[in-house]
Amino acid sequence: MSLCNQHIVLAARPNGLPLADCWLLCSAGVPAVNEGEVLVEISNISLDPAMRAWMNDYCYIGGVDIGETMRAFAVGTVRESRHPKFHKGDPVRGLLGVQQYAVVRGDELDLLAVGDEPLSHHLGIYGMTGLTAYFGITAEVEVKPGQQVLVSTAAGAVGSVVAQIAKLRGATVVGVAGGADKVAFCVNELGLDGCIDYKRGDFDQQLAALMPNGVDIYFDNVGVPMLNSVLNHINERSTIIVCGAINQFQQMDAVVGPSQYLRLPERHSTLKGFTYFHYVDRFEQGVAQMKEWVAGGQVKQFEQCEYGLENFHNSFNKLFSGDHRGKLIIKP
Amino acid sequence: MSLCNQHIVLAARPNGLPLADCWLLCSAGVPAVNEGEVLVEISNISLDPAMRAWMNDYCYIGGVDIGETMRAFAVGTVRESRHPKFHKGDPVRGLLGVQQYAVVRGDELDLLAVGDEPLSHHLGIYGMTGLTAYFGITAEVEVKPGQQVLVSTAAGAVGSVVAQIAKLRGATVVGVAGGADKVAFCVNELGLDGCIDYKRGDFDQQLAALMPNGVDIYFDNVGVPMLNSVLNHINERSTIIVCGAINQFQQMDAVVGPSQYLRLPERHSTLKGFTYFHYVDRFEQGVAQMKEWVAGGQVKQFEQCEYGLENFHNSFNKLFSGDHRGKLIIKP
Repeated sequence: MSLCNQHIVLAARPNGLPLADCWLLCSAGVPAVNEGEVLVEISNISLDPAMRAWMNDYCYIGGVDIGETMRAFAVGTVRESRHPKFHKGDPVRGLLGVQQYAVVRGDELDLLAVGDEPLSHHLGIYGMTGLTAYFGITAEVEVKPGQQVLVSTAAGAVGSVVAQIAKLRGATVVGVAGGADKVAFCVNELGLDGCIDYKRGDFDQQLAALMPNGVDIYFDNVGVPMLNSVLNHINERSTIIVCGAINQFQQMDAVVGPSQYLRLPERHSTLKGFTYFHYVDRFEQGVAQMKEWVAGGQVKQFEQCEYGLENFHNSFNKLFSGDHRGKLIIKP
Repeated sequence: MSLCNQHIVLAARPNGLPLADCWLLCSAGVPAVNEGEVLVEISNISLDPAMRAWMNDYCYIGGVDIGETMRAFAVGTVRESRHPKFHKGDPVRGLLGVQQYAVVRGDELDLLAVGDEPLSHHLGIYGMTGLTAYFGITAEVEVKPGQQVLVSTAAGAVGSVVAQIAKLRGATVVGVAGGADKVAFCVNELGLDGCIDYKRGDFDQQLAALMPNGVDIYFDNVGVPMLNSVLNHINERSTIIVCGAINQFQQMDAVVGPSQYLRLPERHSTLKGFTYFHYVDRFEQGVAQMKEWVAGGQVKQFEQCEYGLENFHNSFNKLFSGDHRGKLIIKP
């Protein structure tokens, strides 16, 4: 008797924030496992802002086709293997999709070395978001003690890790988050030196008050208009790291450029772009460093877990409403 | 009997391209030379796109006030000195203004070591434009043999030097210029591998045809929309050097940001901003290198000379109509 696989299909391309009719919850039999393939039972699916970009027709790693199972990073356990590297019970990770089971080629899977940590941490702190944070704030820029670092989406999966690493490096770190609760989380749980509440509407005044010595490094996950405000506060020889633009993913055909970009030549400053995918060669080193920091209590992992593919639409949109803290996960 | 000094005063702030009524040609007696000051008879005044930015209320080095003599780099000869470093007849350079005579503090003047070259070259190839080019294409980025380099305003004072240095480094260099004559100048006189005629209106198609292997380095003097087109053609790990935005100087309160900037994270690329003023400490080294290249015939200086302050308005606007080649100079 074949297993039944619930999966989320991309039914329509969104215009702005995805509506419920972008998604279709489908059931189908799990396909047979061919030579070289592995059947994975998925335990945790990663919810990431980048997925909004993957829903577009044009996307830097190719858009998801209409009618296709939605692309997502996920972790799970091998249930059947016809690939020599994997055995039943092995913990694995890959672009397994928003579904309960995946049959994938073994060479597309990571075999995980799991210790005491939950498997879901291989989506967060040891996964795309944690490594995006790690390479962004350690390889794209060198944070020096005493520098003024501003981190957008500081209560989110990437921002919360960036901010903690910048603190470890001895910087003064200010976050940006939405609402008093998340501001308190950034200051009390992440130990930041301050946090701007962007929902208050006086971003520029809060930035001036919290960072009177200007901004040396800005980690930007958001884009315009916040990016423009920050450009007006950068110091000489500052660095802006752009790893995404959550404001822009909703309207990739109408992205607004930063009109204040001429502050860069004025102040001898740099805007550097990167993604997680540019550091594939260095993942092992990144995970090793993150494990050391987590073991030493120097970096904390925060995770929010959602349940059930029938709730996928609402769970996914929490990424954009800001209704989550740390890494957002859904268990199918 | 005191000398009469013709000078150009900023009479009104422009909105867009400066109209004739932005300028007033005035005459006044040359002021007395106080202790520590020097009287300079100006022989050549530099005309630079940056001056358009200096006409605005807000400017990164302070705007010129209404009623003030227009700011400009100029060279001339000391006519009277009450500063120990300078003597009558010395060739000097400084922000002397658009006028025939200037009385300035000695510590604001550069004493020039002039060989056989015309004094005006200390405004061009050994001045702001030449050194902007030199530091931009040698210190902000390292050009490697075989790289694909695109240079905007390639027939202009900065671009023509950038393009020649990039050729010296072994790169494939394509310029951007306006009109068939300037395109021919870039290919035949500067020795570039190709040149886009932006006035033809099919910039994107020309870029694709001339640089089928993409762009590794783009030297941007122009801004949007050209910058957006180039962003769509950048390679992985490319660098865009921004030292100005001649399109934007006309409307500094309505600058348009590059909407294609998310190509930077997609392609692990960087946008670096700088100005000439950030390399003050290294001017001597820059001039020494440029003199060596000019002496060896490896870099050529191109200059266009205008005459008479009564023609200042028309001469200045040639910077923006593209009606000049190489360094634009006016003799007062």
